[in-house]
Amino acid sequence: MPIGYSQLPELSPVAGLRLAAVAAGIRYRDRDDLVVIEIESGSRCAAVFTRNAFCAAPVTVAREHLEETMPRYLLINSGNANAGTGAGGLDDARRSCRELAELAGCQPRQVLPFSTGVIGQRLAVDRLAAALPTALSALEPQGWAAAANAIKTTDTVAKGVSTTLDIGGYTVTLTGIAKGAGMIRPDMATMLAYIGTDACVDSAALRRCLNTAVERSFNRITVDGDTSTNDACVLVATGASGMPEIREGDECYTAFCEAVTQICERLAQLIVRDAEGATKFITVRVSGGRDSEECLQVAYTVAHSPLVKTALFASDPNWGRILAAVGRAGLSDLDVDAVQIYLDDVCIVRDGGVADGYREADGQRVMDAEEILIDIRLGRGAAGETVWTSDLSLEYVRINAEYRT
Amino acid sequence: MPIGYSQLPELSPVAGLRLAAVAAGIRYRDRDDLVVIEIESGSRCAAVFTRNAFCAAPVTVAREHLEETMPRYLLINSGNANAGTGAGGLDDARRSCRELAELAGCQPRQVLPFSTGVIGQRLAVDRLAAALPTALSALEPQGWAAAANAIKTTDTVAKGVSTTLDIGGYTVTLTGIAKGAGMIRPDMATMLAYIGTDACVDSAALRRCLNTAVERSFNRITVDGDTSTNDACVLVATGASGMPEIREGDECYTAFCEAVTQICERLAQLIVRDAEGATKFITVRVSGGRDSEECLQVAYTVAHSPLVKTALFASDPNWGRILAAVGRAGLSDLDVDAVQIYLDDVCIVRDGGVADGYREADGQRVMDAEEILIDIRLGRGAAGETVWTSDLSLEYVRINAEYRT
Repeated sequence: MPIGYSQLPELSPVAGLRLAAVAAGIRYRDRDDLVVIEIESGSRCAAVFTRNAFCAAPVTVAREHLEETMPRYLLINSGNANAGTGAGGLDDARRSCRELAELAGCQPRQVLPFSTGVIGQRLAVDRLAAALPTALSALEPQGWAAAANAIKTTDTVAKGVSTTLDIGGYTVTLTGIAKGAGMIRPDMATMLAYIGTDACVDSAALRRCLNTAVERSFNRITVDGDTSTNDACVLVATGASGMPEIREGDECYTAFCEAVTQICERLAQLIVRDAEGATKFITVRVSGGRDSEECLQVAYTVAHSPLVKTALFASDPNWGRILAAVGRAGLSDLDVDAVQIYLDDVCIVRDGGVADGYREADGQRVMDAEEILIDIRLGRGAAGETVWTSDLSLEYVRINAEYRT
Repeated sequence: MPIGYSQLPELSPVAGLRLAAVAAGIRYRDRDDLVVIEIESGSRCAAVFTRNAFCAAPVTVAREHLEETMPRYLLINSGNANAGTGAGGLDDARRSCRELAELAGCQPRQVLPFSTGVIGQRLAVDRLAAALPTALSALEPQGWAAAANAIKTTDTVAKGVSTTLDIGGYTVTLTGIAKGAGMIRPDMATMLAYIGTDACVDSAALRRCLNTAVERSFNRITVDGDTSTNDACVLVATGASGMPEIREGDECYTAFCEAVTQICERLAQLIVRDAEGATKFITVRVSGGRDSEECLQVAYTVAHSPLVKTALFASDPNWGRILAAVGRAGLSDLDVDAVQIYLDDVCIVRDGGVADGYREADGQRVMDAEEILIDIRLGRGAAGETVWTSDLSLEYVRINAEYRT
């Protein structure tokens, strides 16, 4: 069960987008595994893809297509990642786009393909193609929940969020769905997110907005530091709300960007909350750094430390492990006496060691909770950063050791 | 049980060094926990200490003392790391040195203190001091094995190695001992190593030699990426072999350095072999890189990946996880088609995906062994690096989650 999240909330349709989910039998039986998202002509689209050098075939093809033109369709399958499949995998991704384009009456380059699932197996394009007519006839604005369910792989629950906001007198809707269980499985190549809005946004502004939002959300979560070969996040703005176009520098741009960031943050946190084996949702906040970079360096060193993560699993207020992780984060001339470490509101480290007056019972009270803040104050500047992570449990090892056997 | 190592071999005495191990009752009952190493006057000493900013009190004091003069005594206790103990901890470390100096008739700064054990508790200096007279009267050249046992904390076995070599017609002995179980416990603050030799070596050459050796050994092992607050490695050259002094650039220097590196490599590997919860001893070799730095980047990304480590625990030839780890190591313009990955002699990745003709049975055969080579060929240069690591097992999580409870 995810931490602090039990089921998909109601997702609002977004004018200009229609979705369908069908069962193509690509790998799973008796469940939807293929999603088509139809995008109204004239919409703008931005996307961010994995930085993994071994990126999957659909990532390569989607990148190419998006450089050439705006997409009319997103084609997403679960069950097979089409990764580590070499030249044949690229052919499969391209053929999938052609099949959909032919049926829908658009150019293949107007289709962006996405895949998630096992690595190293060829995609059953015939089965995928055979399911496309049903999918196209099933497209509907209310298809978000079905799509959120169909893109799941090891996720225990479908993930999505909707919001509306007022921008210059126009009511704008944002709806996002995501799949991923803690980014912990490159072999179930992992994170996908799709966000739609009826706001009208200039292409450059949309790209910049998505980059900012991803940087502050999907790039701030970590379960085990692994990045999948298939990660992608897509933001589509249909403009169907009828509002005037938002451009960078507009007053509206900031409000829109903030809303997109919040959607992405929520989706990113849901992925951590559903991390395989996770029993805790951890926020690591680092403040008082000289710049963002060093704050992130400390935050990730703590968030990736197996010793910190096993202590969190054990609900053990083991300040020595957090202190040691901060100490080895590689900050030049760190004055350890200036560093303070809190668990929620309990000060555990000060003046280079355990804080005067710290009582184990206070630390224990914080650690017993499902959601914990590790608050590290470096005391040498004004920069701050926050990342989200989970603990390292027996179940994590069990799942990842037994996955293929 | 450590992997491929069952018990301490015979350790040769080193002329000019005498050791004693006694039970001071600092934390453990019914076992030795205090070691004194007496160094003949005129010896040279070099040391490398942890880079953790939160270094323990004895590390600070040992660094200070070594900058001032050559040591006559090393004073090592297990059971308590004297780390995270603030100003009081520094007083304790200094007082320990004074107590020994007074009994032995030397200056306090001629004593280097070392501690290993739990973090955050004050050291019982009274008990330590009370045991010193017995220790001094028990000093003997044959004390290496007793010392190797006394410095253990969570180690399941004492670690040591001896070798002799001919340098310019003189027979030189090197003996080293170490403690540490996989560097996985900053709270049992972790790695200590002491190497003695009767070679005669110029101070600058000795320092350089130790730095090189540590870089190629203790800095090439990782279990979970955590670095303890107490790590230290000391190399003492007594000169008692009567040979002429070795200086940098001498022909003898290379041979001596190589011998020290081999001793350090062996001790470092023993630490990984004894890593808590480890069921496998893994060598990650990266070749064909543009420089050492990028080879290490790839090697550590693979060696630290929880997904790779859980697959190793499961004896699962999961090439997708290794490939994904290489892909996210951050190498600029990596040509993934040029990368080859082998498990021992079995090629698993080539041309951007699973190797043509790879059979799961071949990968399985390699993975079933206790010692496994992950051999990554980047195909873009002549640099190479090797690191050693262990797998991530259920037992690892169990030990580290249950340690304090």
